[in-house]
Amino acid sequence: MVLSLIAGTANPPLAAAVAQFLGVELASVQLQRFPDGELHVNVAEPLRGRDVYVVQATAPPVDQHLMELLLVADACRRAGAARISAVIPYFGYARQDRRVRGREAIGALVACQLLRTSGVERLVALDLHSTAIEGFFPGPVEHLTAVPLLAEALRSTLPANPVLISPDLGAVKLATRYSRLLGAPVAVIHKVRISGTEVETHGIVGDVRDRAPVIVDDMVSTGGTLEAAMETALARGATRDVVVACSHALMVGRASERLCSYPIKKFLTTDSVGFTAGPLLPYEVVSVAPLLAEAVLHLHRHESLAHLRAEQ
Amino acid sequence: MVLSLIAGTANPPLAAAVAQFLGVELASVQLQRFPDGELHVNVAEPLRGRDVYVVQATAPPVDQHLMELLLVADACRRAGAARISAVIPYFGYARQDRRVRGREAIGALVACQLLRTSGVERLVALDLHSTAIEGFFPGPVEHLTAVPLLAEALRSTLPANPVLISPDLGAVKLATRYSRLLGAPVAVIHKVRISGTEVETHGIVGDVRDRAPVIVDDMVSTGGTLEAAMETALARGATRDVVVACSHALMVGRASERLCSYPIKKFLTTDSVGFTAGPLLPYEVVSVAPLLAEAVLHLHRHESLAHLRAEQ
Amino acid sequence: MVLSLIAGTANPPLAAAVAQFLGVELASVQLQRFPDGELHVNVAEPLRGRDVYVVQATAPPVDQHLMELLLVADACRRAGAARISAVIPYFGYARQDRRVRGREAIGALVACQLLRTSGVERLVALDLHSTAIEGFFPGPVEHLTAVPLLAEALRSTLPANPVLISPDLGAVKLATRYSRLLGAPVAVIHKVRISGTEVETHGIVGDVRDRAPVIVDDMVSTGGTLEAAMETALARGATRDVVVACSHALMVGRASERLCSYPIKKFLTTDSVGFTAGPLLPYEVVSVAPLLAEAVLHLHRHESLAHLRAEQ
Amino acid sequence: MVLSLIAGTANPPLAAAVAQFLGVELASVQLQRFPDGELHVNVAEPLRGRDVYVVQATAPPVDQHLMELLLVADACRRAGAARISAVIPYFGYARQDRRVRGREAIGALVACQLLRTSGVERLVALDLHSTAIEGFFPGPVEHLTAVPLLAEALRSTLPANPVLISPDLGAVKLATRYSRLLGAPVAVIHKVRISGTEVETHGIVGDVRDRAPVIVDDMVSTGGTLEAAMETALARGATRDVVVACSHALMVGRASERLCSYPIKKFLTTDSVGFTAGPLLPYEVVSVAPLLAEAVLHLHRHESLAHLRAEQ
Amino acid sequence: MVLSLIAGTANPPLAAAVAQFLGVELASVQLQRFPDGELHVNVAEPLRGRDVYVVQATAPPVDQHLMELLLVADACRRAGAARISAVIPYFGYARQDRRVRGREAIGALVACQLLRTSGVERLVALDLHSTAIEGFFPGPVEHLTAVPLLAEALRSTLPANPVLISPDLGAVKLATRYSRLLGAPVAVIHKVRISGTEVETHGIVGDVRDRAPVIVDDMVSTGGTLEAAMETALARGATRDVVVACSHALMVGRASERLCSYPIKKFLTTDSVGFTAGPLLPYEVVSVAPLLAEAVLHLHRHESLAHLRAEQ
Amino acid sequence: MVLSLIAGTANPPLAAAVAQFLGVELASVQLQRFPDGELHVNVAEPLRGRDVYVVQATAPPVDQHLMELLLVADACRRAGAARISAVIPYFGYARQDRRVRGREAIGALVACQLLRTSGVERLVALDLHSTAIEGFFPGPVEHLTAVPLLAEALRSTLPANPVLISPDLGAVKLATRYSRLLGAPVAVIHKVRISGTEVETHGIVGDVRDRAPVIVDDMVSTGGTLEAAMETALARGATRDVVVACSHALMVGRASERLCSYPIKKFLTTDSVGFTAGPLLPYEVVSVAPLLAEAVLHLHRHESLAHLRAEQ
Repeated sequence: MVLSLIAGTANPPLAAAVAQFLGVELASVQLQRFPDGELHVNVAEPLRGRDVYVVQATAPPVDQHLMELLLVADACRRAGAARISAVIPYFGYARQDRRVRGREAIGALVACQLLRTSGVERLVALDLHSTAIEGFFPGPVEHLTAVPLLAEALRSTLPANPVLISPDLGAVKLATRYSRLLGAPVAVIHKVRISGTEVETHGIVGDVRDRAPVIVDDMVSTGGTLEAAMETALARGATRDVVVACSHALMVGRASERLCSYPIKKFLTTDSVGFTAGPLLPYEVVSVAPLLAEAVLHLHRHESLAHLRAEQ
Repeated sequence: MVLSLIAGTANPPLAAAVAQFLGVELASVQLQRFPDGELHVNVAEPLRGRDVYVVQATAPPVDQHLMELLLVADACRRAGAARISAVIPYFGYARQDRRVRGREAIGALVACQLLRTSGVERLVALDLHSTAIEGFFPGPVEHLTAVPLLAEALRSTLPANPVLISPDLGAVKLATRYSRLLGAPVAVIHKVRISGTEVETHGIVGDVRDRAPVIVDDMVSTGGTLEAAMETALARGATRDVVVACSHALMVGRASERLCSYPIKKFLTTDSVGFTAGPLLPYEVVSVAPLLAEAVLHLHRHESLAHLRAEQ
Repeated sequence: MVLSLIAGTANPPLAAAVAQFLGVELASVQLQRFPDGELHVNVAEPLRGRDVYVVQATAPPVDQHLMELLLVADACRRAGAARISAVIPYFGYARQDRRVRGREAIGALVACQLLRTSGVERLVALDLHSTAIEGFFPGPVEHLTAVPLLAEALRSTLPANPVLISPDLGAVKLATRYSRLLGAPVAVIHKVRISGTEVETHGIVGDVRDRAPVIVDDMVSTGGTLEAAMETALARGATRDVVVACSHALMVGRASERLCSYPIKKFLTTDSVGFTAGPLLPYEVVSVAPLLAEAVLHLHRHESLAHLRAEQ
Repeated sequence: MVLSLIAGTANPPLAAAVAQFLGVELASVQLQRFPDGELHVNVAEPLRGRDVYVVQATAPPVDQHLMELLLVADACRRAGAARISAVIPYFGYARQDRRVRGREAIGALVACQLLRTSGVERLVALDLHSTAIEGFFPGPVEHLTAVPLLAEALRSTLPANPVLISPDLGAVKLATRYSRLLGAPVAVIHKVRISGTEVETHGIVGDVRDRAPVIVDDMVSTGGTLEAAMETALARGATRDVVVACSHALMVGRASERLCSYPIKKFLTTDSVGFTAGPLLPYEVVSVAPLLAEAVLHLHRHESLAHLRAEQ
Repeated sequence: MVLSLIAGTANPPLAAAVAQFLGVELASVQLQRFPDGELHVNVAEPLRGRDVYVVQATAPPVDQHLMELLLVADACRRAGAARISAVIPYFGYARQDRRVRGREAIGALVACQLLRTSGVERLVALDLHSTAIEGFFPGPVEHLTAVPLLAEALRSTLPANPVLISPDLGAVKLATRYSRLLGAPVAVIHKVRISGTEVETHGIVGDVRDRAPVIVDDMVSTGGTLEAAMETALARGATRDVVVACSHALMVGRASERLCSYPIKKFLTTDSVGFTAGPLLPYEVVSVAPLLAEAVLHLHRHESLAHLRAEQ
Repeated sequence: MVLSLIAGTANPPLAAAVAQFLGVELASVQLQRFPDGELHVNVAEPLRGRDVYVVQATAPPVDQHLMELLLVADACRRAGAARISAVIPYFGYARQDRRVRGREAIGALVACQLLRTSGVERLVALDLHSTAIEGFFPGPVEHLTAVPLLAEALRSTLPANPVLISPDLGAVKLATRYSRLLGAPVAVIHKVRISGTEVETHGIVGDVRDRAPVIVDDMVSTGGTLEAAMETALARGATRDVVVACSHALMVGRASERLCSYPIKKFLTTDSVGFTAGPLLPYEVVSVAPLLAEAVLHLHRHESLAHLRAEQ
């Protein structure tokens, strides 16, 4: 079976880098938006009997990127692809993994079902916000992690006396994974009401005083959570050598502008989304292209991906 | 079973008008876009056991409007709706109803499958560009037509000696339906090569000389087809009292600007899409709200819709 | 994966010819009708892990031929076939591709669903009457065309000054494809009311006077459409050197008898259905066996079929 | 919910009788065969929200009758029927309920799947040849029995000293049900090799000497099984007052002619198939119309059918 | 539509209490285990057109209780039930909601799929261990909570100066819900490595010194988590007036024996599982029967359950 | 494609023997029951792209063994197995193949559907109690038979003048298969009422007097059927050299104790279930491991299994 790699428009440089690592050409695909905004997909080369991997982050604008992935998958299946895997470095709608207050949609489930309906048979994802997605998608899900890559990039420049900070309860497992790799302690920011009558405030578990805060999260969207974490940590006596590490830097709206008023010494992230590191923050971007390429290669060869997965 | 009517954001005035004709309140729904563009749906009132109709044109921006419809449907089904019907006054991706050149997606089929996957059990559509959609959607499709409404609006102001012009072969059946209602002859613009060596040109079938051209089509998008039709008709001696009638006025980009250089005396259309009639063209807009309301009422009461359907 | 070719009873000579071109033996299959008319299928040789192609036109008697295909497919899947493709040179019920007047079945869709339910995973079809079928069947559809074969057969004996005539609006694209291959102009017969009050008559687009009419269609069933086309063309001054070209010659009932009173010089068709060219008409039959064999071979080898497909 | 009763063409008098018992009109349906044998279905009256029962035996010609049922079901579902039940007095392909020798189809299963695919949600069947069908159809199956009706018809004219004879092992349970109702003993014809070296012969279990044989079976097709049973019984000393009782009289080919050479005093059957009792045999036909009508009525009213079912 | 309530064998007293609150009789069902352990289900009364609720906790022995629920659902659907809802007070396999280490099953997803496959169309569940289950089950899930009932039972006897303790990070949201109802602060036990080199220990967030610990969790299985929580809280100076509140008391193996060596003043739980409160612990059992009965009644009447749900 | 063999806990020695015959190692799988009885599955080696065969009899305790098979299948599919076949030497719930009396479940169908839902794509079964299962499972079923093995084992020690006895009508075909292989006559025990008024008694078809009874059946559960058969045969004059041959020896409860009071000279069976041959009966156990291994090998190599199947 021949491998074919197809890139959506969400992050062409990443797809190109994955292709380069794999030593293959990206398949020639025409992704044309008509004047009314409808997308027309045409694959210019044969896919019959191919093992097809479509690389597309469903990053903002999420609906267009998702729809594009769905139409590409449909074109692939009609063209006789033997197997269609979606490589989704960032999975949009992942936070909608349950109904919180009532008559809501479960957006992450809908996204999974749409992918399957359109012909995607397997997902390759990276540091998913919710592990429920593995059960939502009706097919194998290969859940990769960029944490070892990011931890490796942190290691050399880690400030003395660091503390890994999870900015909320949802990132504690992530922080623990960094902790194992870096040998540093963990602190957790949490929003619990510490008295029955008071409003919620941000507390912190673990000792941050005079320690250099390394705040880790799976994603940074508007930066609001990160701001609160930095304020809490600094208020509790952490040093002003803040390091941030996240797998997905969406940097929505004016996130970079707002964050540049904090003493961030390094903002470490990956190229999972089509993110442009501007001058406002001291970005360091680690490419996940080798990781994705290795995963694709192992999948194509029917080899184990165990070493690329994270404990959940 | 109680009827619930939900409006998407594609065309709120139309949904409000439908609700008014039905004598019901639109269900209270929160459709919130997060800063990263993800949509969050929350229905504020009970839907359990309800007969739910979601009114949403999948007009531009088509991907967002479609995704919104899918998430609303998912919320409805989780909330225990007894039956979910999508009322889609304009159906996006309808022109992608087959593979033309090769390894393409069939966008209209994908849209139908996504709707079904998300919980839509029945479609109510209006003057669909392709009749194949009735077979693509895995459930009942009620295909309504605005042609009688538009013909009625034409009748009083129809210029003397009119000729109904189908701007391409795809609209001939539509023109024939107008013809039956208005008692006027039909002419057809066509693109066939009239010699084996020449390039394609626009020919015309039927006599237009000294007749007032009434150009009918299901939709006007960029206006290009319409421009070609007017030029052909005028070149063949049609009078400069052009009337245009279409069910869906997308008027993409600078369509109005381009069309206003032609001698259009009346541009008759409906409010199927969230279209704003600007001053550039002599628009007359007939509301399909009564038609949609009547269809919803008949469906809700399990009554026949035969009188609202068109022969295909 | 080993290729297996199975023939239904609709057209054994065609299946045998396909087998010969492929250099394979037809699989030994027992297709026995019990005294009560029930069909019993028994495949006499192993199919496990095979790439199976079942050749069966669903020509009249359509219900028996379709049911036979369904039962053969079921037998194949139970026997462990790796993949089951139906090669359907003529697809019955193709004209029922939409609901025309109301509470009808969509026969083409039903046929597609029955095929899928019984184990058919892929269709290979030839000059389908309706392109909607590609979307109706829930799997890849390879839509082949015999037009180049027929055009090639026409070329040498084409009368001087020919005109390709589409007998109705549905065959215009087909006529255009012949036109491109043969370098001859196109004329179109159409049924539109040319006045608002008159009944429908047959008009014609394009110049046929003193030209030799080459009437092309996808299929000839009772011959009625063809008769009307010939009468219209001759009335408009076409020469009496009529050539007919169609992919599928069903010749239902007394079609040959009725047509032989017209000045048909050549009736060109294929062996897609189990059609016996009688002496009444000057038949010339081009075999589609090489075309089908080539398609099967390319599919079996996971190669592109683009050169065998027609633009739709 | 309003009840609608639709008749296929397999047995119009039975459907009419069911309608009469129910006090309803048969729905007006156009079932037109085109010249090429394709069936066109058009239902002339509204079905939206109706509780639809389609009465159609899949008796010979089985493929046409089955296909007709499938297309009618499709038309009903597209027309918005609330629930579609197929009332199948005789179920064709029922004997193909397993693979006997190898790479065969399971025709009964295929038939069940086709019905479900086309929109049938519930089966009402009568004295099915195989109980496996209840598990094959993916929906509720109401398996009725005509045995009490037939036993009642037998009772008054039962010859003295009767013995109920099952003509093979498959009908033993059926014979036992007659036995319970009529208070007569059972004998069983069987084909077992009574010596290891001999060929198979027909043996008999139970005492038939000087008893009047009442041979019971679910169906009589060519009459071959019945002939063998009569010969065996008479050879073992049964009296020449043979009575035959079967639920389904297919009487395929020259069955009546062949059977009329045997001393059959009464041939008792039902009108489950569109069977015409000729003069050759002393037929007595009991109508199952009241039974089917009662079942439909109970189903429509959500009442128990337990008293119309047989133990299996 | 008539309501039918069916009880599995997991917790007959609870089902009986639900029936009593609803004022209905439990449907008569025979649930017989054959000598080889296979279960035979027979429902003794009509279910056709009924709105059926099957009450069955999938508590230990989980596989038998689950299989029983599946077979009962199958019997109901064959008997023509209009709708089948499973009322599952305790949902077994809920903790297997993701793959933790590699090639594991997702048991909660499998359980959900088995339920749907067997005919269950809707789940009613209580304080699910994982919210992912709402997305795993392909149908509406009504997720009820016993927290208000338990909080109400706590209120009167709450020791002075209480602190609500979440024994791990997974129960923080639960503790927060108790906190809102009782106006008491929250503390969280957590297992994070507080230094990079040390092994994991149990830390605590929030002040417990001299406060009465009220440990809340969704379930107590072997009691191990609870033991650790009590030891941690007492070590940090909490008073020895321990109160435990959990929705599901499985008390597997010798859980009660082990826990009775701790200063538990009250062990508050519900009757969700067929749990027998022994003398070893100061149990107080609040019945969820009224809650389940109210939910069933609202569902049956198509009314909102919003007031019975908890925020997730 | 590499073959992987996984053993459930139902019959580890059989699985080990199959592995040995195939020359492969059993895959390392952790099947851990938690204290609350929930099963946790973890496969320790890669399965991606593998051809996986899971050997698991669903013998008592049937619910646990079935659930184990379902969870193993789910783990395999998530791990990327290319194809999952369940090798089920004994298929529990096989006797529930139809509804006998009314509102029952069809347990065999439910089991088949659960298997398919959990990822099993193909069944390999041995001497199934009901042939309907082949139609119930939505995928290929390879139905093997141990009869030739058992007949071979009987041949050398067959008493003089033997008669093969089918203990009820359901085993007649089985007895006939033994008869063909051994060249011995067949007798059939049957429960029919031989008079209309008498209660049922056991009759016998065929001559057993002074013959050595060889009672054959597919399975022995509690031994009750076997006891009745022996008593009937001995009462009719059969010799006291009873031989029993069955494919599946469940020996439920005190079956061995009860049977040891009969003159059984040999009790021939297989190791299909995890059966321990105790000292009470003169057991001779033929291993089906070579048969299963051969079947797996042929399936893996896409070869015919025809010689391992039995006529049904």
